[in-house]
Amino acid sequence: MLLTVLELVGIAVFAASGALAAVRARLDVFGVVVLGMTTALGGGIIRDVLLGIHPPTALRTWPYLLVSAATGLLVFVFHPQVAKLRRAVLLADAVGLGLFTTGGTTTALAAGVPVYTACLIGMTTGIGGGALRDLLLREIPTVLRQEIYAVAALTGAIVVAIGHRLSLPAGPTAVVAAALICGLRLLALWRRWDAPRPRER
Amino acid sequence: MLLTVLELVGIAVFAASGALAAVRARLDVFGVVVLGMTTALGGGIIRDVLLGIHPPTALRTWPYLLVSAATGLLVFVFHPQVAKLRRAVLLADAVGLGLFTTGGTTTALAAGVPVYTACLIGMTTGIGGGALRDLLLREIPTVLRQEIYAVAALTGAIVVAIGHRLSLPAGPTAVVAAALICGLRLLALWRRWDAPRPRER
Amino acid sequence: MLLTVLELVGIAVFAASGALAAVRARLDVFGVVVLGMTTALGGGIIRDVLLGIHPPTALRTWPYLLVSAATGLLVFVFHPQVAKLRRAVLLADAVGLGLFTTGGTTTALAAGVPVYTACLIGMTTGIGGGALRDLLLREIPTVLRQEIYAVAALTGAIVVAIGHRLSLPAGPTAVVAAALICGLRLLALWRRWDAPRPRER
Repeated sequence: MLLTVLELVGIAVFAASGALAAVRARLDVFGVVVLGMTTALGGGIIRDVLLGIHPPTALRTWPYLLVSAATGLLVFVFHPQVAKLRRAVLLADAVGLGLFTTGGTTTALAAGVPVYTACLIGMTTGIGGGALRDLLLREIPTVLRQEIYAVAALTGAIVVAIGHRLSLPAGPTAVVAAALICGLRLLALWRRWDAPRPRER
Repeated sequence: MLLTVLELVGIAVFAASGALAAVRARLDVFGVVVLGMTTALGGGIIRDVLLGIHPPTALRTWPYLLVSAATGLLVFVFHPQVAKLRRAVLLADAVGLGLFTTGGTTTALAAGVPVYTACLIGMTTGIGGGALRDLLLREIPTVLRQEIYAVAALTGAIVVAIGHRLSLPAGPTAVVAAALICGLRLLALWRRWDAPRPRER
Repeated sequence: MLLTVLELVGIAVFAASGALAAVRARLDVFGVVVLGMTTALGGGIIRDVLLGIHPPTALRTWPYLLVSAATGLLVFVFHPQVAKLRRAVLLADAVGLGLFTTGGTTTALAAGVPVYTACLIGMTTGIGGGALRDLLLREIPTVLRQEIYAVAALTGAIVVAIGHRLSLPAGPTAVVAAALICGLRLLALWRRWDAPRPRER
């Protein structure tokens, strides 16, 4: 029950991030809602396409569709207010990254793929929606350019995979991994950690 | 028989739209043909990947491949003449949108997915090719930015789904839905209907 | 054995091409590694998604992941030196194109799809990684704009398909086809062959 609520919170936050980016790019109301839904559901859809889960869970779970579409509409109407909540959005985005990544890794392990495959697919679940958002808005995905984001996701995915190999209970392991991802991400934001850039020639 | 002809007309028109955009972007002859094929077949390929139909129907139906490739080549050679047919291309594009969307929705319902999933996948079948065309040409997909296009597709998909729930005969329902999509789209073009944009801050 | 070595060489070269492009776009170390892996493995992942092979071979074969990630890291550190090896990179890229395309066509034929479908999927295997690299870096895919690249791949794929229809031994046919693709590509580079562009209006 708590997990479902948290998952819907993650979806709402990712949808808000996509919808806000769409408002900034001056899309129309349909574009804002679609960007919100793509950002919220895109990572899970990529995961399911890679694992052969047809049709993707995100497209046949109506609460996911409803929450992401409604969030997009709310952001369309109230975007000046939402944009002011910058810190709250970043915090919630870190929570979403943790939940999506650990959920994706767990789903992939349950499908019986090798552990390193599950880690990659879990990380992709966490960062895929944001990458699609940037691609649709004709931007190089932020996740490839700056800040510790994907590395936090990958770290948490590895924790889930180790727990799986050691046969630790899945629930608590996932909670610890999600908290780790969220914590790493917030620490990186707070300390302005960037991944190294290539040296100049 | 009539349906097959109409479907090939839809493919030819979508291919022409992609090929014309490629000519404007100064791609070479291979790029023009590929853009034409992607625009014509991309929506159906996305649909089949989401539904788990392998390999996608569009890649194993040679008339689809032949018609879309030949249209791309013709546009490459005769593009100044084709570009003059702007109104005819817009009209045919509306017909293609209607046919692709209703066909996609019907295929998804036949695969046994929930009705709302079928509506989303049907709409994606109709708008996916054009969105891929814009992405490959490094543009924010038109469908997200302006004009009533996706909303017309979604409306028709919902009509198909309602007909399916009421067990109405599939053929006539699809014809009505396709005509509705086409009509809404042309009305939007004629009256210059745009979807609402976000208000300025 | 030799084939496996050649395949890993192809993966390393494609990874180097993606990583170099990422260095030029000023991505961070994570972005450079991801771009390298996407360029090296993207064509095969698209192939497997289209054929319904879950999860894609590239994601569950650890030597592929290791070689592509390590190449990305090496390019991140030594990019000024690697960029000087321009001719060697182009040569190796032609070898990779040949290997990926013939491998993709053979895999598709083994999955039982029609021959023309196998040719298209084989060509996509060869050119898909580079197209994804360009898309992620917000560029119109090079393969659509200039030079004989995809046409060389398609020619080799057709040779593989003809050999399959004539029941020729698969191994030697693949070698001949790969050599043909590689030779055509190098000839096009050497003679500066471009595909025709659209005439001006």
